[in-house]
Amino acid sequence: MVTKPTSEMFSFHETLTQAEDRLAREVLERMTARWSLSVMRILAQANGPLRFSRVLERVEGISQKALTQTLRTLERDGLITRTLYPQVPPRVEYELTALGRELLVPVASLWRGVAVKLPDFAAAQALRRDL
Amino acid sequence: MVTKPTSEMFSFHETLTQAEDRLAREVLERMTARWSLSVMRILAQANGPLRFSRVLERVEGISQKALTQTLRTLERDGLITRTLYPQVPPRVEYELTALGRELLVPVASLWRGVAVKLPDFAAAQALRRDL
Repeated sequence: MVTKPTSEMFSFHETLTQAEDRLAREVLERMTARWSLSVMRILAQANGPLRFSRVLERVEGISQKALTQTLRTLERDGLITRTLYPQVPPRVEYELTALGRELLVPVASLWRGVAVKLPDFAAAQALRRDL
Repeated sequence: MVTKPTSEMFSFHETLTQAEDRLAREVLERMTARWSLSVMRILAQANGPLRFSRVLERVEGISQKALTQTLRTLERDGLITRTLYPQVPPRVEYELTALGRELLVPVASLWRGVAVKLPDFAAAQALRRDL
């Protein structure tokens, strides 16, 4: 389904202040960073809290360090929660917030739109290299 | 309208190779860069080719240098075309491609989703600062 861009689609953007525009781009950058989508997807599919080790085994190819950093960034943006249960050994669980769940949909849509068009992007880049 | 994330929504992502994932993220990064959305929006609203000077006057606050760079990046990704008419003085026109027009919709949706939630993001960041 292709929707035509309309002016109403952008009215929100015309009213953003410079600071808001910057914050929005920072968030967008972090949401499209390496591993962010994979981690959010795993948490969405779990449909409930998940321990660090469970996320680690479900996100194929991610290192412990990269997962730690990705979770921290997502938490800082309020997209996931981190809950520490003070037991021995301590248990830490991660869960998508309502905000994360809500934004995952347009993030995934954009990702999919780009993924479907990857051959076009690759061709455009190859063309430029040949010039 | 809030759509619930579903597994099908992400099936495309599981099949991407590392190289494809990287290219997709590069494209996403450039599409969410400063000025990209504004410039694509102006070209979408023009609904036809636009000269450099027309884009410059319609994108509020952009410098000539930033516009030059943004247009070059969008062109390299195949999102816009640049047409040079060899007359005196030379005329250069820019236009959204079908690819650009198609991807503008999910880009704008994600932007809008984030923009609407900016207070939440600001609150999440303020919370972290206080900890």
